Amino acid sequence: MIEINYCIQCGAGVELRVPAGDNMPRHVCDACGTIQYQNPKIVAGCIPEWQGRILLCKRAIEPRYGLWTIPAGFMENRETVEQAAARETDEEAMARVEIAGLYGVYNIPHISQVYMIFRGDLVDGEFAPGPESLETALYSEEEIPWEEMAFPVVVRALQRYFEDRRRGMFEPFIDEIQPMKR
Amino acid sequence: MIEINYCIQCGAGVELRVPAGDNMPRHVCDACGTIQYQNPKIVAGCIPEWQGRILLCKRAIEPRYGLWTIPAGFMENRETVEQAAARETDEEAMARVEIAGLYGVYNIPHISQVYMIFRGDLVDGEFAPGPESLETALYSEEEIPWEEMAFPVVVRALQRYFEDRRRGMFEPFIDEIQPMKR
Repeated sequence: MIEINYCIQCGAGVELRVPAGDNMPRHVCDACGTIQYQNPKIVAGCIPEWQGRILLCKRAIEPRYGLWTIPAGFMENRETVEQAAARETDEEAMARVEIAGLYGVYNIPHISQVYMIFRGDLVDGEFAPGPESLETALYSEEEIPWEEMAFPVVVRALQRYFEDRRRGMFEPFIDEIQPMKR
Repeated sequence: MIEINYCIQCGAGVELRVPAGDNMPRHVCDACGTIQYQNPKIVAGCIPEWQGRILLCKRAIEPRYGLWTIPAGFMENRETVEQAAARETDEEAMARVEIAGLYGVYNIPHISQVYMIFRGDLVDGEFAPGPESLETALYSEEEIPWEEMAFPVVVRALQRYFEDRRRGMFEPFIDEIQPMKR
């Protein structure tokens, strides 16, 4: 976790306090007046399907090294959420995907993230592990390694996806992930 | 626009370059190793309805001082998007809203923002200008001050909202706002 100690603009020390006209503490620089706001990040992901099976990636990076996930990652500036989801699918699974639509939005307030997950079909069925993946593979619903999944949000999204697929209707939704009990 | 010149953690000067294992330039601190990522921000908003009319706010702040908008603003850490939309409605229009559902997502890649707009009904029909509003008012479709609206995304969302309301169906959607021609 990065600590905020200095002003990114002028390099002076910052103070954590509620600025005039605001109602939340921010990191304020008294030397140049810069206020550094911290806001939630969007994680864009895709459930890529090919002939009824789902493409998953085994993580080659922390956190959750060695566990499985859908292609997903932090959205970058100057792209759309759909572009971010397709880019992550390309980077992590070296697969081209045709985005079919926004599927689900998951609030994860305790880590200040919002997951935006799309449905998509592989364009040509080709895939391979990118630099952040140990392995990539297509799984049918019965084959999904449920006990080796990296993130609760991915388990929830995939379970819902298979239910929706059975009833033949993918309705966009918004939901929330609570902290795991320890 | 804030320039990124210094490391927020250790205060040393940063360099803009592609870190090892990455494919985009980031602000990297060679003194402590911190990488400062910049990511898109979520703007959460609400189309608050009361007896068929829509609650709008006349902006008391820049940009677009004096022009009209729906209640909307930057999502904060540790809240859900729905909470952010309800909070903004409370702050800007001093109105309590019951969120009815996610309505639309607008990519605005040229300013690295993602608008997430909810539908909602006022709880008790009460409202008043908050500190960031000059005025608040309920408008029917015919009365909306289309020529005095603050942001293209709000015009687009309201136009679609009225169309959807006429056909009696609000289907969540994702769309994109292009830069305005000059």
